[in-house]
Amino acid sequence: MARCRLCRSERERTPAEIYLPAHRLPLCRKHFLSWFERYLERTIRTFRMFTRRERILVAVSGGKDSLTLWQALVNLGYEADGLFVYLGIEENSFSLLSRRAVEAMAERLGRPLHVVDMKSELGFTIPDLRRKTRKYCSMCGTVKRHYLNSLAKRLGYSVIVTGHNLDDEASSLLGNLLNWNLKYLSRKYPVLPAERGFVRKAKPLCRHYERDIRLYAELRRLPYLAESCPLSEEAIRPFYAELMDRLEERAPGTKLRFYLDYLRKALPLFAEHKEEFMERDLVVCERCGEPAVGSPCLVCRLREEFGGAGT
Amino acid sequence: MARCRLCRSERERTPAEIYLPAHRLPLCRKHFLSWFERYLERTIRTFRMFTRRERILVAVSGGKDSLTLWQALVNLGYEADGLFVYLGIEENSFSLLSRRAVEAMAERLGRPLHVVDMKSELGFTIPDLRRKTRKYCSMCGTVKRHYLNSLAKRLGYSVIVTGHNLDDEASSLLGNLLNWNLKYLSRKYPVLPAERGFVRKAKPLCRHYERDIRLYAELRRLPYLAESCPLSEEAIRPFYAELMDRLEERAPGTKLRFYLDYLRKALPLFAEHKEEFMERDLVVCERCGEPAVGSPCLVCRLREEFGGAGT
Repeated sequence: MARCRLCRSERERTPAEIYLPAHRLPLCRKHFLSWFERYLERTIRTFRMFTRRERILVAVSGGKDSLTLWQALVNLGYEADGLFVYLGIEENSFSLLSRRAVEAMAERLGRPLHVVDMKSELGFTIPDLRRKTRKYCSMCGTVKRHYLNSLAKRLGYSVIVTGHNLDDEASSLLGNLLNWNLKYLSRKYPVLPAERGFVRKAKPLCRHYERDIRLYAELRRLPYLAESCPLSEEAIRPFYAELMDRLEERAPGTKLRFYLDYLRKALPLFAEHKEEFMERDLVVCERCGEPAVGSPCLVCRLREEFGGAGT
Repeated sequence: MARCRLCRSERERTPAEIYLPAHRLPLCRKHFLSWFERYLERTIRTFRMFTRRERILVAVSGGKDSLTLWQALVNLGYEADGLFVYLGIEENSFSLLSRRAVEAMAERLGRPLHVVDMKSELGFTIPDLRRKTRKYCSMCGTVKRHYLNSLAKRLGYSVIVTGHNLDDEASSLLGNLLNWNLKYLSRKYPVLPAERGFVRKAKPLCRHYERDIRLYAELRRLPYLAESCPLSEEAIRPFYAELMDRLEERAPGTKLRFYLDYLRKALPLFAEHKEEFMERDLVVCERCGEPAVGSPCLVCRLREEFGGAGT
């Protein structure tokens, strides 16, 4: 078995139980964990995402990605608190178990966790929404982004971070290329500055493979929920993800190179035309004061239209 | 069975034996052939490739794509002659059978066919080259392009056309995107103007699916050679082609939309930076007078280095 690349002296060179093919790096368990966190630190610095002097709000779902991100940020000494949106999904006790996972995580880290209960905020849950419209998946995203942004502003957080990983970013990049979605391609940077009422947003795990994140979560014994949302109907995303998986299998490191070369070489060309691709101007919602593409914003319109319907 | 969309009167509405999923078009055999040629005509006009007043040189290999292109151009009334480069590949009698196919085609069309014998021009064949270097596949392309260009100029042809089809273009586009080959992405237009010693080049079949080209070649009973080159070692191209095939199967029309939207929306953005991506300036080869990245050009250097080695 290969020896861990990071065990310093020859004496300590323990067998590498872990191999990272994209980085051609054999590591022991201990050094995998430290490598993982240092690599995260380098991503945060390279893209100037945030500093240790800023307050960070982590969007936590209870899954491996967001809990790993929270744990690793705290280990690195960042002031990172959690925000969880309770969506009221009863299938497989999904929301309940997710909530328990993030609460256990908050206790473990000794960090504050903010919980937004969709039902008491809006008067309806995701299952209620699902009975009324087929677009509940994208609306769920809008609702979560709305509360992330408004709470971050209200509570004085400088930056919102999400657990999007390299596999997510590479496969959505492929999908957006195959459909030439230039609006998306011209602004898919892993950190978006605070502007026009939006708090700064960052994806610190954008260079980490999902496989490595899962391993980190397991080795650190994070109390994450392995199940994904039982109501998710995203049929096309997994298809692009599978194509990327096949490319990665053929040539390890493909996803990383594809994504980073996009950021370095192609995105600047698309970004020159960013303004042309914005189909609608942002306004401020007259009800809630959040930036939106129309006023009232989608969340305020949903509250009015569906609020109380599910009780 | 669905009825042919193009059979005019109800009486004549024959059953459609052919269905083109990307175009949602059911057709009878007769109308498939006329649709195929009209669609080619529209491509030639849309991209302003050439007119009926110009002399056209078709690069013919003996395969279905180039023979289909030649036949369809002549049927449409274009003044199109053939150029075949005899590569001396004896495996499976490949070059011999290819030559017979293009000669049969020239006779059938009553059009001139120019034949370049690599051995007598350069003193070596592709199998000779293969014994000396592993790069013989890309060099074969360079040799063919060299003779296409120099002969077109010498014989007064305005434009060189090649049989690249939509499947070729879509899969090479995907490969170049996955590798962010910006030099390629910034100039992958289906017609390249005459400039700096190059004759104008066009790919009139760039909007035709390979499947439809094969069908055309079969229905017209073209004397094409079905085998592909026995020495071809392009291991990666088929991989991208297979990925595109899976996308196409899932959503017919994907290749066409992906390629045409690239030309319409993305290529202009890349092309603004075209000059930055040219790594070397073109010069004129002091031996043969052809445009090249260095002087002597690759073909003249090969002639010197390997010429006569295979005899």
